[in-house]
Amino acid sequence: MPLPSNVRLVEVGPRDGLQNEKQPISVADKVRLVDDLSSAGLSYIEVGSFVSPKWVPQMAGSAEVFAQIQQQPGITYAALTPNLKGFEGALAAGVKEVAVFAAASEAFSQKNINCSISESLERFVPVMEAAKANGIRVRGYVSCVLGCPYDGAIDPQQVAHVAAELFAMGCYEVSLGDTIGTGTPGATRQLIDVVSARIPRDKLAGHFHDTYGQALANIYASLLEGVSVFDSSVAGLGGCPYAKGASGNVSTEDVLYMLNGLGINTGIDLDQLISAGQRICTLLGRDNGSRVARARQH
Amino acid sequence: MPLPSNVRLVEVGPRDGLQNEKQPISVADKVRLVDDLSSAGLSYIEVGSFVSPKWVPQMAGSAEVFAQIQQQPGITYAALTPNLKGFEGALAAGVKEVAVFAAASEAFSQKNINCSISESLERFVPVMEAAKANGIRVRGYVSCVLGCPYDGAIDPQQVAHVAAELFAMGCYEVSLGDTIGTGTPGATRQLIDVVSARIPRDKLAGHFHDTYGQALANIYASLLEGVSVFDSSVAGLGGCPYAKGASGNVSTEDVLYMLNGLGINTGIDLDQLISAGQRICTLLGRDNGSRVARARQH
Repeated sequence: MPLPSNVRLVEVGPRDGLQNEKQPISVADKVRLVDDLSSAGLSYIEVGSFVSPKWVPQMAGSAEVFAQIQQQPGITYAALTPNLKGFEGALAAGVKEVAVFAAASEAFSQKNINCSISESLERFVPVMEAAKANGIRVRGYVSCVLGCPYDGAIDPQQVAHVAAELFAMGCYEVSLGDTIGTGTPGATRQLIDVVSARIPRDKLAGHFHDTYGQALANIYASLLEGVSVFDSSVAGLGGCPYAKGASGNVSTEDVLYMLNGLGINTGIDLDQLISAGQRICTLLGRDNGSRVARARQH
Repeated sequence: MPLPSNVRLVEVGPRDGLQNEKQPISVADKVRLVDDLSSAGLSYIEVGSFVSPKWVPQMAGSAEVFAQIQQQPGITYAALTPNLKGFEGALAAGVKEVAVFAAASEAFSQKNINCSISESLERFVPVMEAAKANGIRVRGYVSCVLGCPYDGAIDPQQVAHVAAELFAMGCYEVSLGDTIGTGTPGATRQLIDVVSARIPRDKLAGHFHDTYGQALANIYASLLEGVSVFDSSVAGLGGCPYAKGASGNVSTEDVLYMLNGLGINTGIDLDQLISAGQRICTLLGRDNGSRVARARQH
């Protein structure tokens, strides 16, 4: 299979990234980050999450962020909406695309969102209905696709089942998340092979964490399997590369550097992206999680 | 091409690694590191370098290190010998295998060792002759194979030429080094394709730096091309992951983790390797450059 000639990067830094940073930042700073990412050429930005700020204080003010960002034509600005209340909040804020999530592991589902996988899927039925009624596109995430912190190995068939459920419910694309970063390229290829028996490859995305340093190898393996959409986080936000317990989002800069080297088009300007990442890192007082950004600072 | 079922990792931490750490360490501490690596199951360890301590103070005492390590049967303990004087020192120290190096870039050769590529190769003629006369195996390194800090892009044919010269002179294996870490998987595969027209694939090794985060993707790409020997450095010694100007040796732990995931045999115990890496990092007062080691410290 030839490598894809174009890849879409889904920038999750403002949501998945900032959500996992200890320090909440202001609405104005989030707006600046999203606008910087728009200017750098990202075509898809997950801007925030409509959840209770009691549970996720970092995501407070997502409605204000949506109201203040300079939305550019051709760029998707999405929000995570874990339930109908969140969806209604997003709708009121003028959000045009949302995302929902389920786990491939029962234990993770129970510990993370306190319900079984099938209960979590049922919870999305009204969200999907409301989305359809309002012409809102929905993207699906599946977590723990290559390993679970509680259950260990995960059967690819189980991942395929959950992904197929989300697809059947109306998600136009399903992102397969290696939440704990334990996946390696062979397992990644096998997973895509199994899941693509249920969902076309061009409806799949890869979401890799670099906790064990495997993310780029897994993305390259996914490209070889025909996957052409990947989630990543500017400056590796959400996973401090030095701290214990790092969640380890792969950095958009490092993915982009590899894609550029492979001659794959993304429409993203690496230098502008590095500047956007460096600015938010300075603001957060954290080191830059992108190796490319650190190498360029020489 | 199927993936290799066995891979040999060439541990360069005690030489290429420590040589690039600011702080020289004692002979006893080097001995401990090498012995730890032997115990972890490495089958090839580059122990030191026979060069003037005036130029490379970190490599002082290599003869003493060779005298004091507990050499295990089946493990190769090698030394870098840049010239005949170095070779004679290694021979006197009882070294059984040495390594020589040349650059694929004229500018790098001039700036790094102050002579042209062909002059550097001529300098190895007496080393190769002395090695042959004494039954010593010689491994060859080629640097800057995927980019040069002065010349930028390097023609794969030029790499193939230098590698073939080293092979013709008697090097039993040639290690292709991405010295500045700018290579990406497609360029890596193309390079191996071109070089393997001159040297059999099973006589090639890959030496990748993680400066831009690309090392594991490049190693996976090399495995797909049938390469089954890789150089790496325990704990990423020689390339502080946080500092500017990091040289960026890929960490042995991270490579091993990927190989384990791919079901490829190496004979190395990951836990013991992580312990060896953590011990030397503590001694050097530096953070561990292995993502796997950091993830395991949770």
